[in-house]
Amino acid sequence: MSQNLKIVGNALPNMPWEERPEGCHNVMWRSKKNPIIPRDLLPTSNSIFNSAVVPFRDGYAGVFRCDDTNRRMTLHVGFSDDGIKWNIDPQPLQVVGDYGYDPRVCWIDDRYYVTWCNGYHGPTIGVAWTEDFQDFHVLENAFLPYNRNGVLFPRKINGRYAMLSRPSDTGHTPFGDIFYSESPDMEFWGRHRHVMAPAPFEVSAWQCMKIGAGPVPIETSEGWLLLYHGVLRSCNGYVYSFGSALLDLDEPWRVLARSGPYLISPQMPYELMGDVPNVCFPCASLHDPETGRLAVYYGCADTVTGLCFGYIPEIIDFTKRTSIV
Amino acid sequence: MSQNLKIVGNALPNMPWEERPEGCHNVMWRSKKNPIIPRDLLPTSNSIFNSAVVPFRDGYAGVFRCDDTNRRMTLHVGFSDDGIKWNIDPQPLQVVGDYGYDPRVCWIDDRYYVTWCNGYHGPTIGVAWTEDFQDFHVLENAFLPYNRNGVLFPRKINGRYAMLSRPSDTGHTPFGDIFYSESPDMEFWGRHRHVMAPAPFEVSAWQCMKIGAGPVPIETSEGWLLLYHGVLRSCNGYVYSFGSALLDLDEPWRVLARSGPYLISPQMPYELMGDVPNVCFPCASLHDPETGRLAVYYGCADTVTGLCFGYIPEIIDFTKRTSIV
Amino acid sequence: MSQNLKIVGNALPNMPWEERPEGCHNVMWRSKKNPIIPRDLLPTSNSIFNSAVVPFRDGYAGVFRCDDTNRRMTLHVGFSDDGIKWNIDPQPLQVVGDYGYDPRVCWIDDRYYVTWCNGYHGPTIGVAWTEDFQDFHVLENAFLPYNRNGVLFPRKINGRYAMLSRPSDTGHTPFGDIFYSESPDMEFWGRHRHVMAPAPFEVSAWQCMKIGAGPVPIETSEGWLLLYHGVLRSCNGYVYSFGSALLDLDEPWRVLARSGPYLISPQMPYELMGDVPNVCFPCASLHDPETGRLAVYYGCADTVTGLCFGYIPEIIDFTKRTSIV
Amino acid sequence: MSQNLKIVGNALPNMPWEERPEGCHNVMWRSKKNPIIPRDLLPTSNSIFNSAVVPFRDGYAGVFRCDDTNRRMTLHVGFSDDGIKWNIDPQPLQVVGDYGYDPRVCWIDDRYYVTWCNGYHGPTIGVAWTEDFQDFHVLENAFLPYNRNGVLFPRKINGRYAMLSRPSDTGHTPFGDIFYSESPDMEFWGRHRHVMAPAPFEVSAWQCMKIGAGPVPIETSEGWLLLYHGVLRSCNGYVYSFGSALLDLDEPWRVLARSGPYLISPQMPYELMGDVPNVCFPCASLHDPETGRLAVYYGCADTVTGLCFGYIPEIIDFTKRTSIV
Amino acid sequence: MSQNLKIVGNALPNMPWEERPEGCHNVMWRSKKNPIIPRDLLPTSNSIFNSAVVPFRDGYAGVFRCDDTNRRMTLHVGFSDDGIKWNIDPQPLQVVGDYGYDPRVCWIDDRYYVTWCNGYHGPTIGVAWTEDFQDFHVLENAFLPYNRNGVLFPRKINGRYAMLSRPSDTGHTPFGDIFYSESPDMEFWGRHRHVMAPAPFEVSAWQCMKIGAGPVPIETSEGWLLLYHGVLRSCNGYVYSFGSALLDLDEPWRVLARSGPYLISPQMPYELMGDVPNVCFPCASLHDPETGRLAVYYGCADTVTGLCFGYIPEIIDFTKRTSIV
Amino acid sequence: MSQNLKIVGNALPNMPWEERPEGCHNVMWRSKKNPIIPRDLLPTSNSIFNSAVVPFRDGYAGVFRCDDTNRRMTLHVGFSDDGIKWNIDPQPLQVVGDYGYDPRVCWIDDRYYVTWCNGYHGPTIGVAWTEDFQDFHVLENAFLPYNRNGVLFPRKINGRYAMLSRPSDTGHTPFGDIFYSESPDMEFWGRHRHVMAPAPFEVSAWQCMKIGAGPVPIETSEGWLLLYHGVLRSCNGYVYSFGSALLDLDEPWRVLARSGPYLISPQMPYELMGDVPNVCFPCASLHDPETGRLAVYYGCADTVTGLCFGYIPEIIDFTKRTSIV
Repeated sequence: MSQNLKIVGNALPNMPWEERPEGCHNVMWRSKKNPIIPRDLLPTSNSIFNSAVVPFRDGYAGVFRCDDTNRRMTLHVGFSDDGIKWNIDPQPLQVVGDYGYDPRVCWIDDRYYVTWCNGYHGPTIGVAWTEDFQDFHVLENAFLPYNRNGVLFPRKINGRYAMLSRPSDTGHTPFGDIFYSESPDMEFWGRHRHVMAPAPFEVSAWQCMKIGAGPVPIETSEGWLLLYHGVLRSCNGYVYSFGSALLDLDEPWRVLARSGPYLISPQMPYELMGDVPNVCFPCASLHDPETGRLAVYYGCADTVTGLCFGYIPEIIDFTKRTSIV
Repeated sequence: MSQNLKIVGNALPNMPWEERPEGCHNVMWRSKKNPIIPRDLLPTSNSIFNSAVVPFRDGYAGVFRCDDTNRRMTLHVGFSDDGIKWNIDPQPLQVVGDYGYDPRVCWIDDRYYVTWCNGYHGPTIGVAWTEDFQDFHVLENAFLPYNRNGVLFPRKINGRYAMLSRPSDTGHTPFGDIFYSESPDMEFWGRHRHVMAPAPFEVSAWQCMKIGAGPVPIETSEGWLLLYHGVLRSCNGYVYSFGSALLDLDEPWRVLARSGPYLISPQMPYELMGDVPNVCFPCASLHDPETGRLAVYYGCADTVTGLCFGYIPEIIDFTKRTSIV
Repeated sequence: MSQNLKIVGNALPNMPWEERPEGCHNVMWRSKKNPIIPRDLLPTSNSIFNSAVVPFRDGYAGVFRCDDTNRRMTLHVGFSDDGIKWNIDPQPLQVVGDYGYDPRVCWIDDRYYVTWCNGYHGPTIGVAWTEDFQDFHVLENAFLPYNRNGVLFPRKINGRYAMLSRPSDTGHTPFGDIFYSESPDMEFWGRHRHVMAPAPFEVSAWQCMKIGAGPVPIETSEGWLLLYHGVLRSCNGYVYSFGSALLDLDEPWRVLARSGPYLISPQMPYELMGDVPNVCFPCASLHDPETGRLAVYYGCADTVTGLCFGYIPEIIDFTKRTSIV
Repeated sequence: MSQNLKIVGNALPNMPWEERPEGCHNVMWRSKKNPIIPRDLLPTSNSIFNSAVVPFRDGYAGVFRCDDTNRRMTLHVGFSDDGIKWNIDPQPLQVVGDYGYDPRVCWIDDRYYVTWCNGYHGPTIGVAWTEDFQDFHVLENAFLPYNRNGVLFPRKINGRYAMLSRPSDTGHTPFGDIFYSESPDMEFWGRHRHVMAPAPFEVSAWQCMKIGAGPVPIETSEGWLLLYHGVLRSCNGYVYSFGSALLDLDEPWRVLARSGPYLISPQMPYELMGDVPNVCFPCASLHDPETGRLAVYYGCADTVTGLCFGYIPEIIDFTKRTSIV
Repeated sequence: MSQNLKIVGNALPNMPWEERPEGCHNVMWRSKKNPIIPRDLLPTSNSIFNSAVVPFRDGYAGVFRCDDTNRRMTLHVGFSDDGIKWNIDPQPLQVVGDYGYDPRVCWIDDRYYVTWCNGYHGPTIGVAWTEDFQDFHVLENAFLPYNRNGVLFPRKINGRYAMLSRPSDTGHTPFGDIFYSESPDMEFWGRHRHVMAPAPFEVSAWQCMKIGAGPVPIETSEGWLLLYHGVLRSCNGYVYSFGSALLDLDEPWRVLARSGPYLISPQMPYELMGDVPNVCFPCASLHDPETGRLAVYYGCADTVTGLCFGYIPEIIDFTKRTSIV
Repeated sequence: MSQNLKIVGNALPNMPWEERPEGCHNVMWRSKKNPIIPRDLLPTSNSIFNSAVVPFRDGYAGVFRCDDTNRRMTLHVGFSDDGIKWNIDPQPLQVVGDYGYDPRVCWIDDRYYVTWCNGYHGPTIGVAWTEDFQDFHVLENAFLPYNRNGVLFPRKINGRYAMLSRPSDTGHTPFGDIFYSESPDMEFWGRHRHVMAPAPFEVSAWQCMKIGAGPVPIETSEGWLLLYHGVLRSCNGYVYSFGSALLDLDEPWRVLARSGPYLISPQMPYELMGDVPNVCFPCASLHDPETGRLAVYYGCADTVTGLCFGYIPEIIDFTKRTSIV
């Protein structure tokens, strides 16, 4: 890793952080407080996971996937001083369609954009914006159904808004590539480009059935750092892990490097047991450019929310060193 | 909930009971002794679950699903003084066909009727009666295959015996509605009526793939209180939870109310791990009309037996308040 | 074949009949006029097939499956002088539920009973009776869903009405055995007995996936003569053929003989092409006890209606000679 | 049908036409010359079907789906004086991606736009334009994969280009709704609206599994007249028929009427036999506003091309009279 | 094609032959007498297809797949003077296991070897030899189940017997590659080599799901000429066509050329209709080295047997010219 | 159990051993140190399981399945003094094809043979030999794909090498019988015999979907003692348990006895949770003939390696006493 690595972003010195535990040699490691958000933080929540967090004013705000005890999927706003203890509004956000899940939040220019899997005659990508996490303004769905995991880039590229997404089918989709799309106005989308397909089984099995973008990509001098989930189908169901990739800054559909190994795979009881066992699903991250620290929020077993940590330079180095591109 | 709620049944002041734990706001809560019956209570049992308990003489009797270490499904009789510690006969009941599982026991008029899933060229509903849990008298199978979860009402309705059941297919049936049938004589059945279908995914996902009657319905002035299981199919398999419904006293195929949220869903390690992870499956309940106390026996992960508690008036209130009908 | 064969039934000397063509050595042979009923006999019919015909007054009456050009399945009454040219009422019968198909008509004692696949939260067996094919009186559905091919016996057995049926699932059921049930009153049914399962692939492949009763069984001194369809699944779909069986007169769930070879299998263009290629599906027959003549009405490719002929003594002989029981 | 019906379009008095045959009472009827294009018109073609025809100069031009004997799917340009006898260029069009099939051609403003199912990491909607059927200019794919049956409207609506499409999956998609999308520039698409879902089985079974737009919609004073295919899944595979709908002129996602019966369903040997039996799939039509004549080109059994005829006023009348909306 | 092409084999000047019809430009063409063997040539045959023919004494002998009217699969011996009119023994061959189908016959050194798909706890490759088509000597099954389409080479290669086969599963296998194996003694087999996988869909769709060897390969100076079937799965089932390949003489697992287009694909009514529509399946060929004539016997729609013709030099030329290797 | 039981093998007095825990009445019991090999023993291992151990010099050697964090499957050599603490070489064995997993090691005559599931155009049985676990000599794959669980016998039988295997398909095979094959030279294999099919569901459900050989069979005077895994498919996936069988010494395809109950089934958290929940998969055993002690190494949840113990005479007794043969 070059010493000249540049990481874009605002300083975030007080972001949630724990140092790598002694004896641990992994690129990323879990918070000792995991799961940081329990399934029943809300009186009527069945589970809280696959949620998005951003710096907001002096602390943090987020949009949370909170399934209720009907197991309906809804989005809720939450606030936190430290990014660990969260105050979640028990009232669901009113912007979603038939249902809303797996949100991401992305600051672009002057406002926060929320994207999520939106129920409109099937799953597609809903888009809204807010300045204060109180008033939300709904835009058009970005794409036709059936789509999931729509993730915006944190700035315009080539003068246009840019989004990654994973075209899907109507059920537990057994396939899935990541695509890139552009929009001049957040209303009409086009110039769709293929980014990545699942890896061959013999090359990297944890990502051999489908893949999808995770948190908002982080701009660095080495390219866009993208964390993404991958799925393996065992005889007992889907296993969700996540790894990393570097995308070209100007043509993000060009993959510069892509990790063969996973960064985090289900290994803790709270990842192995729950509503959907064996799921680690990242949706958001915080980072401090100065120190290179990265904190990733990820859903655990579709039940609770976990946090894990790493250093961006090390992750970039790992991505390039193990690349399967 | 009206103060005038009438609950039918004999007093059962010494039934198994634990008060709602402090800080718990749920409508039902689990026994601290769970699982009350371990998988290997019998020397050759692989698992003991989905079992039926009734008051009997000064204590309790039951018919238990005990899979042996061949993983054959058999029914066994058991007795208990307190409903918690059980003495189960290691010899299987001889009334079943190719196999027998998921029993229910129902007192009607002057005897106990046992219904169960009976192997006769596929699963159907076996019926037998006993007065003493020693001599069992086999009757005709109630229905043609393929059927499961046959549950009798505790008295004749409109002069006829009445049964709920869930028509099925030959395997891990991916559909299932609850139907109602009548019989003048426990030999011939007819006047079949549709009761409930699975709920739409967007309305109540835990019960969106199939549903089936649980314990014997409890007669109240608000209608028959029915606990029933519902199944959600995730990408990693079936998840069994249970909720509640109120059926019209005279026309039980008319659903007066039906809970959107579940009452109990797999969340404890003994529910999340085992032969079939993520299963909470109720087959029997005890109640005391005076206090409104309800104790529900339910199979956990198709491996062990758990117990949970609640107050009937609160459950009825919950059912009506959250109804999706 | 004994010369003492007795065939029960009224004389029907003028029934539709064609002699075995020269050079043909098959047990049954097709009418030269096939298909005798075209798909568009009614102005709005998409297809007319799987229909039931009985002697009525001086001629014949029938209940016909006529799918309309919405491809909705409805039943229609028809009349004919000769059993070949039919006058079908363009108005559908009003007795059916969500839909009605594959009717059978059976004279018992003093009236005609119609059974059919009736849509009531899934397919089950509808029952109605008529004396004149004008007024139809609907009875209770015989069974819980999911069931198809309910076929009555033409007299009470052991003092009760008797019916064959094929329990099914909700779709294109890939399994299916024939069961027998009894009723004291045509309202409540029970005493269900297993009759026949599909044959092993190595023994008789045309009937190795599912089987179902065809026309009303014919009483003979050798037992009930039952024509039944069988289904083979090739890599290109289901193939429906039909063969014959002899059932014990008093205990019709006991199979005395069962033909290994089929009687008729799809081989003509009107059987091989149509809405559902490769289907020969018998629903009704006429016979003359004196001559032993048998005429079978069968659906062809789920599109048109065909007629085929044979001699009952020869069919019984064939059934016993090739029996796979 | 009002006498005031207005049909938009240029006069086309010499379009292919045959009068309704005597005795025929159907709304549409087939050409006596069917199939008008044989499978082997080109020396290396395996089949020619699902093709698009438009008026061009003094005659007609078209873009044809010609699968070669590798069974690769390619598009070819063709010309004809009478719309019946075609001269097809043996060289495939070079505009397509990995493959191209099921083209439509639509004149808007000043040029012909071709849309087709384009292979780009899965099927999506390719777009190109031409003025002379010699030079073709490729535009961006309209949507993300997976999509099929992209059909343009023949003029801008609300100032934007408008397209119908059917989001799909990666294989023989077992579901499919019609959606509507808009574009300011043929490069970016958005404002997606749901138009029609498959009909319930009990209402109109021929269109109960999936539906997709057929030829370019025809503007009339009663709304946009859309012919669309529908698919029924029998136990022996998919059956493709087609019917008609009327869409609101300004908000075409509003369905004013929709035919319950099909217009054409596979009934001829060339529709029932071929590479994919039981397919009638319309992709283009010609019409003469003055006389109301309509000629529809449709693929037969995915093998050859057929032609059928009708009068637009009668079709509109039929659509409204039988509407299932 | 070089003029120096050498074709190995005995002269067969009187083999069945018809010249290419006028106007036909295809590499192979069908016999005008097709189907040359009807489905009911035997009194009890349901179908006769996928059969193997060899020169024998002054005429021809063969082993025929004759399914009976139980639709059991059996092998029968037949003889013919001209290769067109066949005398088939109504008694099935007694060498097979639970069932036997799709035979090939191959002369090596001093005797005829028969291979077939043999039922032994699943399909595998049965082997037997005969000198006179009267006495057959059964050898060990060549491989473990599950295997089909075992085809011997007509001489030892590298001093060992050599066989192609297609490992399969227990049902309508949706995959299939061709492998090569050797044996020193026809008892033990090994040195397994991969020969060919299905082609990518975009390259040659008719062979994109599975492929299998057809007749015994023909030795030429350009390599072993292999005809092989390929399967495409449409939404309406499997379609079987066949093409050609050239294999290295000494290392036959090396594919020198492989035809992108098919030679014969289902297009005639007797290929498109029958027990399994859309099947052309070659199992044997006759050739005359002097003239280069080739006659191929192939099963049609799994129902009847057809014959088609071509010139070996032209086929070799076609294979090389269109090769997708 | 006869006192005259002879167990073949070298004395192994210091093999890993723990006595049966007090109160335990099971035939086999787990090590208190389980899992004895953690998932991350190697720096880059995701999991270590399904591995083979043999006595080697003064201690033990083994071939281990170590999936890396790409989740690629590789084999690694390891050594141990006590059979508990292992030193595993971080460099993968270079003998495997596209991938290698589930190894077995078997001493025959004068060397160690390794067999494993070898990736060669699908899974098949790879074979290699070594004298020192440093130099490995690759032989031919024993069989054509698709095969798994190839297990050698520890001596020639009838003068030939002998192997058990389980023919499979290309994925998560839902079927599987055990077959027996012989080879004169470890290069060519034949004389394939069927040994055991899955048990009927009603007889022994844990082994009702597929079965496969486990460790190298142990020769005793009662026959070959074979431990084998069996699979049950619940609605939540596959469950792997294992039991025991006795095979005839000279004709090992003759099953003398076969345990109805399992010996070990997933019940511990490390068996119930992990990459593939609910898997107990034995691949190797150590035994001491004198004491009859048996130690079995088995994969747990496809994640870690466990050890369990028993006495061979008791296991033989159990096998015979509970036999379902």
